[in-house]
Amino acid sequence: MRMPQGFQWGGARCGLKNRRNDVGLLVSSVPARAAGVFTTNNVRAACVDYTRASIADGILRAIVVNSGNANCCTGLQGERDTESMAHIAAGKLEIDPSEVAVASTGVIGQLLDMAKVEIGVSVASMELGSDPVPFMDAILTTDLVEKWAYTDDTGVLLEKGARVEGGHDGKASIYGVAKGSGMIAPNMATMLGFLATDWDVSDIDLQGALKAAADVSFNCMTVDGDTSTNDMLLILANGESGVKPTADEFQRALERVCVSLAKQIARDGEGATKLVEVRVRGTEDPKKVARTIAESPLVKTAMFGCDPNWGRIMMAAGRSGVAFDPKDARLRIVVGDEEFLLFEGGGPAAFDAKRVSTALKSDHVVIDLSLEGDAVGLAEQATVYTCDFGYGYVRINAEYHT
Amino acid sequence: MRMPQGFQWGGARCGLKNRRNDVGLLVSSVPARAAGVFTTNNVRAACVDYTRASIADGILRAIVVNSGNANCCTGLQGERDTESMAHIAAGKLEIDPSEVAVASTGVIGQLLDMAKVEIGVSVASMELGSDPVPFMDAILTTDLVEKWAYTDDTGVLLEKGARVEGGHDGKASIYGVAKGSGMIAPNMATMLGFLATDWDVSDIDLQGALKAAADVSFNCMTVDGDTSTNDMLLILANGESGVKPTADEFQRALERVCVSLAKQIARDGEGATKLVEVRVRGTEDPKKVARTIAESPLVKTAMFGCDPNWGRIMMAAGRSGVAFDPKDARLRIVVGDEEFLLFEGGGPAAFDAKRVSTALKSDHVVIDLSLEGDAVGLAEQATVYTCDFGYGYVRINAEYHT
Repeated sequence: MRMPQGFQWGGARCGLKNRRNDVGLLVSSVPARAAGVFTTNNVRAACVDYTRASIADGILRAIVVNSGNANCCTGLQGERDTESMAHIAAGKLEIDPSEVAVASTGVIGQLLDMAKVEIGVSVASMELGSDPVPFMDAILTTDLVEKWAYTDDTGVLLEKGARVEGGHDGKASIYGVAKGSGMIAPNMATMLGFLATDWDVSDIDLQGALKAAADVSFNCMTVDGDTSTNDMLLILANGESGVKPTADEFQRALERVCVSLAKQIARDGEGATKLVEVRVRGTEDPKKVARTIAESPLVKTAMFGCDPNWGRIMMAAGRSGVAFDPKDARLRIVVGDEEFLLFEGGGPAAFDAKRVSTALKSDHVVIDLSLEGDAVGLAEQATVYTCDFGYGYVRINAEYHT
Repeated sequence: MRMPQGFQWGGARCGLKNRRNDVGLLVSSVPARAAGVFTTNNVRAACVDYTRASIADGILRAIVVNSGNANCCTGLQGERDTESMAHIAAGKLEIDPSEVAVASTGVIGQLLDMAKVEIGVSVASMELGSDPVPFMDAILTTDLVEKWAYTDDTGVLLEKGARVEGGHDGKASIYGVAKGSGMIAPNMATMLGFLATDWDVSDIDLQGALKAAADVSFNCMTVDGDTSTNDMLLILANGESGVKPTADEFQRALERVCVSLAKQIARDGEGATKLVEVRVRGTEDPKKVARTIAESPLVKTAMFGCDPNWGRIMMAAGRSGVAFDPKDARLRIVVGDEEFLLFEGGGPAAFDAKRVSTALKSDHVVIDLSLEGDAVGLAEQATVYTCDFGYGYVRINAEYHT
């Protein structure tokens, strides 16, 4: 596989966290069109405001990112440090600081060690290349695995762990990396996603496309319902391949990459043993119902315990604030090729609890809830990605001390 | 202490759950004025609709309650069984079925064993008396302790575990009992609260008073954010003492009893080791901010781990959707007489993390967040009661199998 043209990736370890790289650089050889989606948290890191401003003109040359320190709730000094990060990177890369985006993830409330950051950026800038792994590594905190996905130039999705059977795999058109394990990990923060494409998207509304892709992927994902102070999703499109996808082709490819990354994050949720996909349809606001189910600690602990406890799923749907008649509800669990009906017509269905429990041991479970009853009208379906909730989450988040 | 006049309490064990009583009766010797507050969950047990209808005329003689089975998501047969429960109780008590309220808590989705219920109601009706303990016992599910509180006829609150120093303790005016451990416990459901008063409240808007008291107590409490399908709070006022409190006196006494019961429920939350009180002021919607903090799994696991992780508290406040300037925020932890400032002016305060961590080992912790900055204007304060979140919650909710 060849990476998108005209991008270089780098990473270095400067001691902001204990293991792995902690400073990363993604650089485009020419000014790239850029768009971003940011945390809605009212308490935000300085880098969120800085990067929002720096992409206001729609152009970026580079992204500099650090892990191990979120540089959030750090007052005026924190704002200065974010600005310095951009200036240091711009200096090393010999570009204008206004073309640099800054992202941070890690501990809240501690000042960045700028001497370390300067060394990290310097080393990373000297080791730029086409291999994205040093960069991927540099954005992780409590993540257990790297997260990446790309579409090849025929639009086929290739993702971590997926076989390439039938896929073209000739050349990546959109290449994406992400991190995130808790929305906030043990005092570490943040979902970060970075996408690089060499497609020429000059005729496409890049910001609109990114927002739409985020809405069906990262915005449909929840580990613990807590929104980080530093969340950031950025795309750089440098047009270097000369290929002009249609808006539809681009949107489809973009969404495939984002959904894959979102699922990888959910599956790697703190303490998680499985990816849980909650699908809801047949109501005015299926996403709200799906999100309420996906955020319910009782549903998530039942998934951890492989317990077909449909009462908790119906309870969560019922408290979502979305109106429906329980008599119209039809709740199924889908695991691979197996499908189990648990609740229908206002009462429990006859199912073999032992068989469902065994199926729930899978690392990928789908909760499928239809609320449309006989009147099959509202076809819109929402899917929210989450994980189960077990001892590991408590261990990671309670036994860590600030 | 003498109980409110003209009420009798009873409980019996008929085998709906493994231990303790599982059917309870609360009976007024004369028709009592009645009011109720019910779950807002769209998926509701039959008893919720039944009882709402039976108190529509504002009069009740008795409450019959069972634990061990929520009789929810049980279709038409479930509705018939709720009605039967009222008829069985009315028959034993020789009153009209329309004067009987029904409450249930326990497993969702299983039909009630009505033969057992009939035996339970029969035995309970033969053992009615002034001792509320058999009744209290009959409403518990995963609760570890009974919950009760009352105000004496001078308005002083007496509650479980509280010394009576200075209290009059001559005679209870409003006596309340409650249960609840998870909003939903391991497939067991429900917050239930029952209040009996012999005050004459004929000139008082009983429903309005109960709703107002619920809004500052039970509706300001969260264990896991999950709202049960069977929640119910009922008050019976039979006027038997002949004493007419003013509306203010009554409201104050009612709120004291309800707040005490709500705190007892939060403290006994599934797997909880402490009561956590979240106080917020200085913003348009302090309750929304307090509730978001109280429901954050990251804040709750930090409380379990005795970790003064103020970054998580600020993160949760920030994602509440309520606007404020972090620079105006002032966050303190209060434990007994000790007070620790953690965050102020947009950055961390200087505090001794070890001392705060030691203080957090207390079984009652207050998180105090002021968002008003220098412009001290919005005096309104909201308090939300919750508990910490540890291995016990996961154990109870994941290792139980339906």
